[in-house]
Amino acid sequence: MSNPVLVEVLRGDIVESAHPGAVAVFDADGKSVLEIGDTQRAIFPRSAVKAIQALPLVETGAADAYGFGNKELALACASHNGEVEHVELARAMLAKAGLDEHALECGAHWPSYQRATTELARSGGVPNGLHNNCSGKHAGFLCACCHAGIEHRGYVKAGHAYQEMLREALENVTGAAHNADNRGTDGCSIPTYAVPLGNLAHGFARMATGIGLADRRAKAAKRLFAACMAEPFYVAGTDRFDTRLMRSAPGRLFVKIGAEGVFCAAVPELGLGIALKCDDGAGRAAEVMVAAVMAKLVAHDDTLARKLREFARPVLTNWNGITVGGLRPTDVLA
Amino acid sequence: MSNPVLVEVLRGDIVESAHPGAVAVFDADGKSVLEIGDTQRAIFPRSAVKAIQALPLVETGAADAYGFGNKELALACASHNGEVEHVELARAMLAKAGLDEHALECGAHWPSYQRATTELARSGGVPNGLHNNCSGKHAGFLCACCHAGIEHRGYVKAGHAYQEMLREALENVTGAAHNADNRGTDGCSIPTYAVPLGNLAHGFARMATGIGLADRRAKAAKRLFAACMAEPFYVAGTDRFDTRLMRSAPGRLFVKIGAEGVFCAAVPELGLGIALKCDDGAGRAAEVMVAAVMAKLVAHDDTLARKLREFARPVLTNWNGITVGGLRPTDVLA
Repeated sequence: MSNPVLVEVLRGDIVESAHPGAVAVFDADGKSVLEIGDTQRAIFPRSAVKAIQALPLVETGAADAYGFGNKELALACASHNGEVEHVELARAMLAKAGLDEHALECGAHWPSYQRATTELARSGGVPNGLHNNCSGKHAGFLCACCHAGIEHRGYVKAGHAYQEMLREALENVTGAAHNADNRGTDGCSIPTYAVPLGNLAHGFARMATGIGLADRRAKAAKRLFAACMAEPFYVAGTDRFDTRLMRSAPGRLFVKIGAEGVFCAAVPELGLGIALKCDDGAGRAAEVMVAAVMAKLVAHDDTLARKLREFARPVLTNWNGITVGGLRPTDVLA
Repeated sequence: MSNPVLVEVLRGDIVESAHPGAVAVFDADGKSVLEIGDTQRAIFPRSAVKAIQALPLVETGAADAYGFGNKELALACASHNGEVEHVELARAMLAKAGLDEHALECGAHWPSYQRATTELARSGGVPNGLHNNCSGKHAGFLCACCHAGIEHRGYVKAGHAYQEMLREALENVTGAAHNADNRGTDGCSIPTYAVPLGNLAHGFARMATGIGLADRRAKAAKRLFAACMAEPFYVAGTDRFDTRLMRSAPGRLFVKIGAEGVFCAAVPELGLGIALKCDDGAGRAAEVMVAAVMAKLVAHDDTLARKLREFARPVLTNWNGITVGGLRPTDVLA
């Protein structure tokens, strides 16, 4: 692993830290449009592929049967902040299938958004599975199991019927093998599979365009992307990069972060999918990378490109609100 | 910046992320004992030099005048969790000088330790400067100002009489220039200066041994190191690496983390100082690096070396407590 430095962190005028990474941009026919670094090395996409993992929720007819609209579908693709709106919508999704938080097998953690944590604590509450940033995805899994008549207990385990459906979807969309050889366990206990960035970028171009996917899958993919872009608050939450970026160009950009510095993304109007990983796993750098890459891809659209270049240069302030530095893409990306 | 990968993060058996870095180990005479990567590049040590920044508190006689023991001196060198014990001791230190939290100019943030945050919120509280992880250092600054008759307002600013005393101490101990050219602003608003790892390692060997320092400074340095090693809870807090590592070998190892992946450390019985930085700023990797380096240095002591090698291989578990991976030093360090 020896990829180029793509992002620098400055304190004053001095580079304090640096982040190497790799980036792949592909079209839906599998043509490489941009590759930086080693795009053939297998990486764990983690939560960045939640939209692919939400396909069976739509394809099985569960989403329609339970009357799920954009918000529910966005939450099924989310790594959310655990804000009240996220928690209550995940609860409502489960209720449609006659379930509650006890069915969730993702584990509990305090909300990742600090204000949500302090509000929960102040009200005397403690977190349960609904506060887990993956609870929307898990609620989607459980609803699909119930609708399809699949026993839901143990749904997080490799080999469970529903995990096999997810594995089929991931293999089909990315064209990469997903099996015991490249399997790890994710933070929420489901399997995660290491695949090359090139396959992920190709897969997200397919998701955005429907090209190369069966009809029903193509429709489900477009519906999920549209839902996330229409309701970006439910994909992440207050102050979150994914939410802010998708809001900045409604309906035109799709981004999803994954743990350990991953993004899967798409520019649907260009038919392009993007996948990238910061080698060291830093989300702050992966955010700069995806914004800088998108700015390159939409260079023809001055207004949008300018917005994206701003996302690629976040300012760092300290506890007194004083500007102390910032992040910037290196020449390789800028 | 192109240092070797020193730490790998595994998910299952697959390397998910990797952290390059540089390490310097020097003795008090300035002899290099171990150098990995670029140890001449200037890095911001951030909070890793708090022990040097606490020297004037002792040297001015303020610590004695206010009756400060090991706990207070350890807190003056700390990046603490904001637990009740830390907050109340910082408050008591200020009270000795007739001050309270309003004199602090470090800014407020919720405690970095989650349980401290939820307990504070549950009790209806909000954070003030005392909860800032640097409040002990700032309390020490304020006490020294009051004792020495220095106007304390604006004490965080470059050029303030007390910051000039700190700058003199940093230059004297490390032998590196500290001035406007290599200055940045730290999270708590005081100046931080970028200096080479080699100078920092040499400086921490001097702190540990007193060699090359004026008598009064040598005594102050030894007293501060002894205080931190005697009361490691007050240097960091519950579940924190610095606290756990110093507790594992009472009085024999000194470590202090700094933001953006820095450690300054010492093995006093060997007369060695250590300074290292993870290039990408990851604290998780810097912890593995310092433990692995220390294990190398004390290889002659099987029991201690074994403990340190355990610190260098932390296990990663997920929200259900399932082991999903871990960190390990690469061959360069192991």
